[in-house]
Amino acid sequence: MPRSHGSEIDTLIQLLAKLPGLGPRSARRSTLQLLKKKDSVMKPLADALNMVADKIVICDTCGNIDTHNPCHVCEDTRRDRSLVCVVEDVADLWALDRSETFKGLYHVLGGTLSALDGVGPDELNISPLIDRVETGDVQEVILALNATVDGQTTSHYLAERLASSGVKVTALAHGVPVGGELDYLDDGTLAAALRARGSVS
Amino acid sequence: MPRSHGSEIDTLIQLLAKLPGLGPRSARRSTLQLLKKKDSVMKPLADALNMVADKIVICDTCGNIDTHNPCHVCEDTRRDRSLVCVVEDVADLWALDRSETFKGLYHVLGGTLSALDGVGPDELNISPLIDRVETGDVQEVILALNATVDGQTTSHYLAERLASSGVKVTALAHGVPVGGELDYLDDGTLAAALRARGSVS
Ligand SMILES: [Zn+2]
Ligand SMILES: [Zn+2]
Repeated sequence: MPRSHGSEIDTLIQLLAKLPGLGPRSARRSTLQLLKKKDSVMKPLADALNMVADKIVICDTCGNIDTHNPCHVCEDTRRDRSLVCVVEDVADLWALDRSETFKGLYHVLGGTLSALDGVGPDELNISPLIDRVETGDVQEVILALNATVDGQTTSHYLAERLASSGVKVTALAHGVPVGGELDYLDDGTLAAALRARGSVS
Repeated sequence: MPRSHGSEIDTLIQLLAKLPGLGPRSARRSTLQLLKKKDSVMKPLADALNMVADKIVICDTCGNIDTHNPCHVCEDTRRDRSLVCVVEDVADLWALDRSETFKGLYHVLGGTLSALDGVGPDELNISPLIDRVETGDVQEVILALNATVDGQTTSHYLAERLASSGVKVTALAHGVPVGGELDYLDDGTLAAALRARGSVS
């Protein structure tokens, strides 16, 4: 291979190419843009990465990734603490929160049950959810898992586990396309699905 | 706006969204991926950005952006120093060099002449090219500008300026689609266009 630039630049291209949405070509273009905007983008980006990397923490309460523990959601006193929305991933928490329809709290499972991948209840953030529901002020648990087979299996499992707790258990209404993933939906669809949520237990 | 995470994370998302190919949604997904891969991607990326930012330099000879001056191309003794390929942008230099057909040197103009944008010869890296051709070992200048109106105007201007120097002036063969930009072409097309280059003066 010819070398038109130093190995540090190659390293940067390769690291950027690992980001979702950036292939090798976009990573090269991004690198060039960074090289040309050293002071306005490249250094601020390096600083932001270092600052966030130093502060990243997983919220002990809900599993959100943030720079504070408890996270910004859990420590927001304007939120309705009687509502807990259960999601698979932090990306789903962010997506739902952007829809600005839901003003309660969240609980991030960290995945779904999967026989194929050998993921059982102990591999997910489920026990802390049960504890949270049994000891806190929670009155309704909204299951907002992806409309995939594993997501729905996990939903049914959680509904059974939560049945004895006496809290209301609901799930997102149809409106989430079958097979679709929450994080790819527009905010309007997410909002409609939340408003029309129905009881599953 | 609800706050599901700290402002440092928002800053990171906004900076990533400035990269070509990453919109706000991909920037959020990239940020989450970085948060989840703190040690394997996030910190190495911050380090790579800082390391490259500290070393960025524009090659005094050819205008390439690199971590060394002269750049890796100019100091590569295996290259044919009698051939200079003139390109608009560093992205084109990188693209041509990836095609592995050309083993000469480059000269980056930094743009094209443009009556509309008020870009004249003095705004481009043209005088150093003339000096380089008149004082060095250059025997052939290959004009590899984009097949746009401004690119071709600039090509004609350079061919005229170089006519008195006695060096051979060639241009990329047809093969570059009209209106197309070099950096978007596949390596095979670039290689074919280079091999079939023809005289323009
Ligand atoms: Zn939290
Ligand atoms: Zn150079």
